Parts: sequence; structure tokens; C-alpha cells
Amino acid sequence: MSEVFDRLKAYLEKGNALSRAQILFEWDTATLAPKLADENTAQVVGILSDMYLNAYVNEDVKQCLKELEKEEEFGKLSFVEQVEVEELRKLVGRLEKIPPREYREYSELKAKSISIWTEARKQGDFAKFAPVLAKIIEFKKKFASYRMNPEKHSCLYDAVLEEYEPGFTVEKLDEFFGLVRRELAPFVKEVVPKAECVDKSYNAKFYEVGKQKKFNHMLAEYVGFDFEKGVMTESAHPFTTSLHNKDVRITNHYYEHNLESAIFSVIHEAGHGIYEMQVDDAFTGTLAGEGTSMAMHEAQSRFFENIIGRSKAFWKPLYGKLVSVFPEQLGEVGLEQFISAINKPTPGPIRTEADELTYPLHVLIRYEVEKLIFNQGVSVEELPNIWNEKYEEYLGVVPKNAAEGVLQDVHWSGGDFGYFPSYALGSAVAAQIYCQMKQSLPFEECLEEGRLEEIREYLKEHVHRFGKSKDTNEILKRMMGEEFNPNYYVKYLKEKYTELYL
Amino acid sequence: MSEVFDRLKAYLEKGNALSRAQILFEWDTATLAPKLADENTAQVVGILSDMYLNAYVNEDVKQCLKELEKEEEFGKLSFVEQVEVEELRKLVGRLEKIPPREYREYSELKAKSISIWTEARKQGDFAKFAPVLAKIIEFKKKFASYRMNPEKHSCLYDAVLEEYEPGFTVEKLDEFFGLVRRELAPFVKEVVPKAECVDKSYNAKFYEVGKQKKFNHMLAEYVGFDFEKGVMTESAHPFTTSLHNKDVRITNHYYEHNLESAIFSVIHEAGHGIYEMQVDDAFTGTLAGEGTSMAMHEAQSRFFENIIGRSKAFWKPLYGKLVSVFPEQLGEVGLEQFISAINKPTPGPIRTEADELTYPLHVLIRYEVEKLIFNQGVSVEELPNIWNEKYEEYLGVVPKNAAEGVLQDVHWSGGDFGYFPSYALGSAVAAQIYCQMKQSLPFEECLEEGRLEEIREYLKEHVHRFGKSKDTNEILKRMMGEEFNPNYYVKYLKEKYTELYL
Repeated sequence: MSEVFDRLKAYLEKGNALSRAQILFEWDTATLAPKLADENTAQVVGILSDMYLNAYVNEDVKQCLKELEKEEEFGKLSFVEQVEVEELRKLVGRLEKIPPREYREYSELKAKSISIWTEARKQGDFAKFAPVLAKIIEFKKKFASYRMNPEKHSCLYDAVLEEYEPGFTVEKLDEFFGLVRRELAPFVKEVVPKAECVDKSYNAKFYEVGKQKKFNHMLAEYVGFDFEKGVMTESAHPFTTSLHNKDVRITNHYYEHNLESAIFSVIHEAGHGIYEMQVDDAFTGTLAGEGTSMAMHEAQSRFFENIIGRSKAFWKPLYGKLVSVFPEQLGEVGLEQFISAINKPTPGPIRTEADELTYPLHVLIRYEVEKLIFNQGVSVEELPNIWNEKYEEYLGVVPKNAAEGVLQDVHWSGGDFGYFPSYALGSAVAAQIYCQMKQSLPFEECLEEGRLEEIREYLKEHVHRFGKSKDTNEILKRMMGEEFNPNYYVKYLKEKYTELYL
Repeated sequence: MSEVFDRLKAYLEKGNALSRAQILFEWDTATLAPKLADENTAQVVGILSDMYLNAYVNEDVKQCLKELEKEEEFGKLSFVEQVEVEELRKLVGRLEKIPPREYREYSELKAKSISIWTEARKQGDFAKFAPVLAKIIEFKKKFASYRMNPEKHSCLYDAVLEEYEPGFTVEKLDEFFGLVRRELAPFVKEVVPKAECVDKSYNAKFYEVGKQKKFNHMLAEYVGFDFEKGVMTESAHPFTTSLHNKDVRITNHYYEHNLESAIFSVIHEAGHGIYEMQVDDAFTGTLAGEGTSMAMHEAQSRFFENIIGRSKAFWKPLYGKLVSVFPEQLGEVGLEQFISAINKPTPGPIRTEADELTYPLHVLIRYEVEKLIFNQGVSVEELPNIWNEKYEEYLGVVPKNAAEGVLQDVHWSGGDFGYFPSYALGSAVAAQIYCQMKQSLPFEECLEEGRLEEIREYLKEHVHRFGKSKDTNEILKRMMGEEFNPNYYVKYLKEKYTELYL
């Protein structure tokens, strides 16, 4: 028992309660709140964020953290408490550099911006979103500049990236995306023509939304999303949020003329959700009670979406059910064709609808655009053109309008710059985990027989339960004796796509 | 400009943000949150409630309020600021008497108890809810005892009642319910046999929930619930909540074999919602930014539900639409029969499904039970029997089980003791407002021609816009030169039911 920690505990509890409240408002705004609520709700969120900042950044907390630097005091703490102190130290380090007024203004801005983006996207009108985006970028630049540390950061974007993926700097990401560009871009060009003959016209037929919802609800449950600890509703852009490990929320979005979209979104978000649900109860309500990093989070969601969800073994016991829901649309489509179709590499404008192979190129584009914004000072007005040029260069497609171009992702409206690289890193981590998992589990058999709990158990044991108490590299190292290594990813994709189409 | 108020403003903003967060959690728990979330969420709510208490109850706030007692300082405030200071004074007066630890424990308890009640009610198992109820009552008794003021309260229940309807003590309510018992109970006995022949068997036919939802959504919009400022979802027990006047939420509950239930719930809740939406923007985000009292709130909801919603004039332009949604079930039922049926006085066990005439008897029962709890120390275990005996006495029915008996209402699970009388008071206030409104508006014509905006405008002008800046009696006095007078209610009911059935 440490008296110092007891003192700290009161602040930790307040900070946690205030951040949960903000998360709930964010969820509510994205899924339910009425259109005209924004302005007043944003003020409320601004005040909560201000209190949140004050709960962590104050003299008493600093004093406690200082006292806990002493080994003998730190030694009195339980393991979970030690982890929490370390997390708090990092958090305070980040927050204390931001002037409270700016933090509050930024929080208010964010609370409004998502629905401005939603509206702008609906109308395909970038000009509607541009002024807000410019303000968000201005804040992010300022905040990153406060964090700049010449020992760790060689450019402003490094400081932006650190928020989601500590240790993954532009230097490292350039290396990673260099590999993607070198190895995968030409491979895409090789595979795409070979797969062109795969007929997936069935996907654009009419699929009644009510039936889609029912099937996808079943699917979420099937892969292991526990509806006693979670809910699923709808939003413009599917996402996952978590209040704690027994209250995890995912959303989906349904299209009448796109069957795949909702199916793979739901498996993806369920992957995020299962990660949060499987964090050890010991961490619930603490700063360590969530996934360790965005790359590791995306590793889970993309593991479920692609490695599980786009495999033949997974669909063997399931595909018949899907056909029985949509017999007219799918009656003529066999399992083999379905598998070829859901993996078909098709360069297109939309990231979230991309196949597994072209996906990293979408992320590469966002990475390059964000580098331009933060390191080259490219303006908001230039973004639509830059975006379109890069799509033409890497994917050979030009977005028809801003809705399928620069406006397509929700992330920037929420201030999530520096997040995108995690998607590609996550895919790479997923491939690495997969390689290791196959050595201890009859992976295909588990899928064919619907024994997904064995896969979930493996992930829980080796990844999920640790919450933030171990970082990405520590988890990988513990699991397989090796830190992050993107070569697994290249190998995995090449093998999979060679088998499918070459 | 007052520097003192500026200082106070910071606390008011915090208190408002924290109470909005708690309201959102409460809404979320009742409508969406997963089953297993409760325990952790309750902790979060407990901490938020603790911060809420601290935001208002502290030395600096007391000091500010003291300085604002000086006329010259108070005179510097705008009208809205003055109102807010008065509201804050009352609130602090109430809150400061409660020990912070008890307040937090109570808030945590409430955050869990609604879903325990929901579960218990589903299973009709009072024993599951009894221990929680006992704890809630214990807290309410304690809190009321802290508030006890011999000058205002002649018994403990007086102090309970004050929370919702200041000025309406047991003495006054005994008088009011005495009138109900004296005038209405025998009138009910006279009317019921005469109305027995009205056939409303159509109401228990099968009505597809999807179609009900669509119709009721239209109905909410038709009576004036603005979906740009509000949302409607579902919960076990219909209710209304408001984050501010541009974010008002109502719920409904649908039954496959009861058409009326959802229809009149939705009109009722929309009435509450419209009141909140029409509070003047000047009060938004302040302590005065909501309906002035629970009786006035119920006056609005019951005005919409009964005086508008159960009138022939209202259904004239609408009934055809309802028939077209359910032609098989309603094809043979004419408008006259429908009106007779939706008003048919039928003594039954469920308050929310009661007709307008027997309704006050349901409330009378709750009033008497609550008096027994707070003034006579009746125990939780005795409640089911007492409840059933009173139902037999006043309504001649015995609930088949706890779900349609003592477990039927959500209120006690949320600690809302002392609230029920407001339902009957509200009905009486509604009748009083109606009497006045008819003198300046062609009421029936407005309904027959679907011009409900004129009725809403009248209510806005004379009631809604004031928020909490005028109390119930001030509003009535301003509107018609007379304070609360229940004789309007008796007269209204007798006239209406005489015309319908005698």
C-alpha cells in the first residue's frame, strides 16, 4: 500500500471518468445525437476536456509522480499500479505542454467537426469541410511543436506520429513504406490483370438492408463479439469505441448495392472490439485498460477482417447461410467464386472497400499526404488535387468527387493525423502474428469447424490481455522472439495472392 | 458585468457539463448500453456525481453567493444571470446538506438499479429488486431528513415531495387527492358500466412493430417533436430526457398486441419533449434551461396525450392514415368507435395504459404507498401486498404478478420518490391551461385542420419559454390570473366523460 498512490488514485479516477464521458459524447454524436445539438454539446465537451486536463496536469499529481520516482516508493505498488503510473507519466508529459485554453478550444472544435465532415461528405463538398480542417491542422501542428524533442524527432511529423505509434518515426516508416512500394506495388501490377476475369458483379445487386443487418449481427456474434459486453449500431463510417472492457461499441454502415462493405466492416470492427473485451479485468478503469497501440489494434481488426474473414476456411461453414439469406443474388455464385471475388485485387478510390493487396497503397498515399502537410506546409486547399494525383500514380484511378477522394475518411475530422500508418503497420503485425499462430494452432481446421474461440484464446493469451502493459514490440518479442518485421507481411501477401490468382 | 458572477460562471459551467454527462450515461444505460457494463459504468457515474457536488458545494461558490446577496452586486446581473443565481442558491441549499460520500454511493447505486429493475420486471420477480429498492429508500429517507425544516415540513414525506414540487406538501396533496377520491372515484363507478359496451377488441390484434414504429415516428413529428433537435429510440419504459433545448430525447416501447400503448406514449413523451425544445435559448446551458417543475412537465405531456391526443378533432385528419397502415385490423373500426375506445374507462392494473379517467386513481395509490413508506416506515417486503390491496380497493383489480403490480414503474429504481403526485397534479394543470387556451384559440379547428403549431405557439408563449424562471403558480397566475385550482380538472373530466358515455 502506498499513500502516494492513494493520493494519485483520486486524480486517476477523475481523469478516467471524464475521459469516459467524452468518449460517450463522441460516440453519441457520431451515432445518434440530433443535427442541431452540436454547438451546445461541443461546449459541454470542451468543459469536460478542460477538467480532464486539470485532473492530470496539476502540482499535486506532479508531486506524486516525483515521489514515485523513488525506487522504494515505486516498489510498494502492485504491478497494475506500476503500469498505471508509467502510463500517467507519459500522458502528463504529453498534456502538460499544451496550454489549457488551446486544449479546450481544440476539444470543442473536434466535437463539432465530425458532423461538419459528415455533412460535407454527404454533399461531396470539400469547401464545406476545408475551414474546419485547416483549424484542426493548425492545432495539431501547434501541439506537435510543443512535443518536439530533437533527440527523438527529426521533423514535425515525427512528433505527430508519436501519439499513436511511439518509436515509429518517419525514418522507420519511410523504410516500411519503401518496402511496400518496392515489393508490393509491382506485385499488384502483376496480379491485377490475372484477377480481372473474376466476376463479382453479384456484389452490386440489391441487398435489402434489414436482411444485411440480421446477417451481420449474426456474423459479429460468430466471430466472437460478445453482445453482453458490447453493442452494434450505425454511423456514416464504421468505427469502434470502448468505455471499458465490458462496454465496447462498434458501428457499421449498410449499402443496398454493396454486400461486401458491411460484411468486412463488421468483421473488422469486431476484431477491434474483441481486443478491447479481452483486456484483463485487472486493468479495467485504469490507463492501461485498452489496446496497446493503434498498430496493434489494427493488427487485430485486420487479422479478423482479412486473415480470418477473407479465407476459404472461414466461409466454408458460413457461406451457405449467406446464400440462404440472399438466394436470388447469390444462388449462382459458388464458394470458390465468392472467395476469388472477396479477395479480388481491384484498384479503386475507397480505402475501406479496398482488397487486402491494394490496401497498403491507400495508406501509403495518406502517409505521403500527411508528411506534406506537416513537413512541407502544404495547404488545405491543395489537398484534393494532391490526393487525386497520388491515386492516379499509385492506383491508376482518379476519384470522381471529393466524397470518394479526400473526404472519404473520418479520421482527420477527429484530429487523427498520424493514425493512418497504423493501418498498414497493423496489417504487417497481423501477418507476423499469423505466422506464429499457425505453428501452435490448426488454424484452418479451427475456421472450418467454427472453433473461433481457440483463435480468440490464442490472441487473448499472447496479445489482448496485456492491455497497455506491454508495447507492440514487447508483445511480438514475447510471442515469437522477434520484434516487428515487415517481411512477414510481404511474404504472406505474395503467397496468398500467388495461390489465388497466379 | 459582475466579476463575482464571472467567478461563479466557471462553477456553473462545470456543474452543467457534469450533469449533462450523467444524463447522457443515464440515457445510454436505459436505451443501449450492454448488460454487463453496469458495474463499471456505475463507478464512473459515481465519480462524475462527486465532481458535480464539488462543483457547486464549495467555499468559493458560497462566498460568491454571499456577495451576490447584496442588492448592488445582484443588480449588476442580467435577468438570466439573476435567475441562475437563484436556482443555484436553491440547489446548493439542497446539495450541501448531503455528505459527499453518501451522494456518490447513492449515484452509483442509481446507475446500477435501473437495469436490476428492468431484469426483475422482465421476470416478474420482486425479490430481485427488493434489496436495491430498500437501499434507495434508505438513502432517500436520509437525504429527506437532512432537508427537514419544521417551518416547511410537517412530516418526512413533505421533504421528499419538495424536490419535485416545492410548495405541494402532504397537507395540500391530501386536499387534492381528497377531491379526486370524493368527486372522481364515484364518477368512475358511474361511467365504467355505461362504457362497457364499447368494443375495443381491435386493440389486441396483431400490429407489426416495424409498421407501428413508422407510424409513431410520423405521429411524433405531426404533433411537433422536431427531429433536428431530438431523437426517439426504445426502452423498457418510455421516458424523456434532455441534454439541452436542441438535444431532447424520447423513447417508446412497442407491443405486438397493443396498438394504443405506443401511440399514446409517443404523444405523451413528445409533449415533454416539446416543452424542453421550446425553452428560450437564453436559458440554454443554465440551471434554468428546463421545465419548471414536474407537475408542469406532466401538464404538457398529458395535455398532448389526452386533451389533444384522445380528442376526436385530433384524429379526424389522422385516423384514415392509421387505418391505411393497418387495414385488416382497423378496416371495420370507424372513427367514432375508435374515439370511444381510446377513452374507454377501464379499471386495469397498469398506470401507463390507463385511460384518462381512472388515471388519477393509479396516482392516488402511489401517493398513499409513498406516504406509508416515508411517514409510517412500511418495509419493502410489505409493498407488493399493500399495492395489490389498494388496487383492489380503488380500481377493483388485483395485479396478476409483480410485473403488473408494484414493479410496473421505473421511477423508484431511479430514486424518484415524490414524483408520482406530479402526474395527477399535471393532469389538473393541463385541464386548467386548456380552459384558458380555449378562450383565445379555436382549439378544435386547429386540431381538425392539423394546425398544431398554433397550440404549440400558445404553450411556448405562456409556459414553455420561461424555463425555470417562473414557477408553476406564477405561470398560471400570469396566464389566467389564478393559481393552481383542481376544480378545473374535475369539471373537465366530468364534462368530457358525460359527453362521451352518459
